[in-house]
Amino acid sequence: MTISGSDAPELVARAHTGDLRALARLVSLIEDSSPRLRSVMKELAPLAGHARVIGLTGSPGAGKSTVTSALVTAYRRQGLRVGVLAIDPTSPFTGGALLGDRIRMQDHATDRDVFIRSMASRGHLGGLAAATPQVVRALDAARFDVILIETVGVGQVEVEIAAMADSVAVLVVPGMGDSIQAAKAGILEIADVFVVNKADRPQAHETIRDLRSMIALAERRPGDWRPPIVKTIATTGEGIDEMAGKLDAHWSWLDSSGERDRRRVARAREEVAALALGALRRRMSRLPGDSALGPVAARVADGQTDPYSAADELLDALTEST
Amino acid sequence: MTISGSDAPELVARAHTGDLRALARLVSLIEDSSPRLRSVMKELAPLAGHARVIGLTGSPGAGKSTVTSALVTAYRRQGLRVGVLAIDPTSPFTGGALLGDRIRMQDHATDRDVFIRSMASRGHLGGLAAATPQVVRALDAARFDVILIETVGVGQVEVEIAAMADSVAVLVVPGMGDSIQAAKAGILEIADVFVVNKADRPQAHETIRDLRSMIALAERRPGDWRPPIVKTIATTGEGIDEMAGKLDAHWSWLDSSGERDRRRVARAREEVAALALGALRRRMSRLPGDSALGPVAARVADGQTDPYSAADELLDALTEST
Repeated sequence: MTISGSDAPELVARAHTGDLRALARLVSLIEDSSPRLRSVMKELAPLAGHARVIGLTGSPGAGKSTVTSALVTAYRRQGLRVGVLAIDPTSPFTGGALLGDRIRMQDHATDRDVFIRSMASRGHLGGLAAATPQVVRALDAARFDVILIETVGVGQVEVEIAAMADSVAVLVVPGMGDSIQAAKAGILEIADVFVVNKADRPQAHETIRDLRSMIALAERRPGDWRPPIVKTIATTGEGIDEMAGKLDAHWSWLDSSGERDRRRVARAREEVAALALGALRRRMSRLPGDSALGPVAARVADGQTDPYSAADELLDALTEST
Repeated sequence: MTISGSDAPELVARAHTGDLRALARLVSLIEDSSPRLRSVMKELAPLAGHARVIGLTGSPGAGKSTVTSALVTAYRRQGLRVGVLAIDPTSPFTGGALLGDRIRMQDHATDRDVFIRSMASRGHLGGLAAATPQVVRALDAARFDVILIETVGVGQVEVEIAAMADSVAVLVVPGMGDSIQAAKAGILEIADVFVVNKADRPQAHETIRDLRSMIALAERRPGDWRPPIVKTIATTGEGIDEMAGKLDAHWSWLDSSGERDRRRVARAREEVAALALGALRRRMSRLPGDSALGPVAARVADGQTDPYSAADELLDALTEST
């Protein structure tokens, strides 16, 4: 499927009417960092901003896919259109999970109001962190009401991506020694809702107690959101409605506190800065003669100059060359 | 201990004569991103470039500290001065390990030709990845022959830091389910020498077989280095001399192949680019009026403009403002 013949405005307009094939093409353009991306984004920008974006993250084995699937079902019962962006090597969407999970998600695969897209953690031209907000924008412009971003909460990048959502649900599993230790990776700090999945396990009580004391210790100003803890058994659907309810409450709080706009501006800040810095980095390598990054770095490696003076030299050359 | 009264050239000159107190001050200046850093780095640059830098990384529990300590002993027997930079929350240098390890390292603590510095993974002003090459440069200028960088090979940053070395030893432990799976984190790709520690465990054979087939599968051109596998039992010192021998062989190969210079230039490239991009990022936030990152990001969040146009706007403002 090539995109020749369909110009950016037309493709975006079709996606905006709910054409999932056009949407899939847009997502591919983003994943491939196509040169057409600029014009696509120009068209998409005014159409986006309505969807509610929810991040779901947790250690491998926490049951993220099962929770995601159950949550999709819950939102569909409310008549909402749901987009799922799975960034997780163990996700059924990317092909790494148990047969049961796959079958469960295939129910949604036949539903025209559910769009599922998996993104591999590697091999993205512009980097996964750069692609994610753009894919979210495309789903948003295609009139999805809720967009779920599912990531495995292991690496720094994955945690950052989950944090691109309006609300972040962090899944914790009782009896996994590292569940609370995961704090190191920064995963607990980004939680708006804690979900203790597989809550029928004997160690659930202990996990909830640990989370409670952690939440109690966190610094919080008056009016700040206090992350609730929800118990779920996603395989049976138990607790999923309560989880959706807590996410609704967080969405209302985001609205009333003005935090939603603050978060969205902060995210746009990161996105724009990353694009600008990426362009500057490319310019650095292309500067003429001895001022380019390569020759300057060679002099640093030789001890002829120090890295700060070298950086100054580069900066001067960058601003002069334009 | 303040640095008032000792100007940069004097501090550097004292460190260069082997004054460990002056060296410790230099390292603190780097950790604090002191404004004096620029003049310090200018003085340090021509004095560095002689040390051999070895990275040691592996999963928690792989025995990195014990191996590091045994390797320090091996190099000291050769009369070499050794600097250790420990970036690992579980390291005895940062205070997280067993008493036995601590006692073992304290032997070196009384040795004037061993300098040990721990760096916490968090709280560095300029970022740990930015501080590390500068601390290495300081140890190098203080005439250490070998500099060991010990990191826990879990996060992306830690793997990147280990890769800042001339030679990288990756520690693998038999019977840890994830030893080979660690490939995901990119840790195995950076290995110049594989060290199977705790090699008396029954699963050692299997681990070595897995590593061998992985090494056999890797793409390699003629003349490329093929990572050897060394078996160690670091608690008894077994295999450590062989490990040091393999690292020597790698060092010779780096020299004869020209790869050492290529690696050092590539590292300088990353370092200089990161400093320059950091400066540009700060400038972006300080641009006057509506062209600063904040107002531009607000328009992106509103859908008034798209991130690419916003980035272009920022880039124009950056080059005009200087």
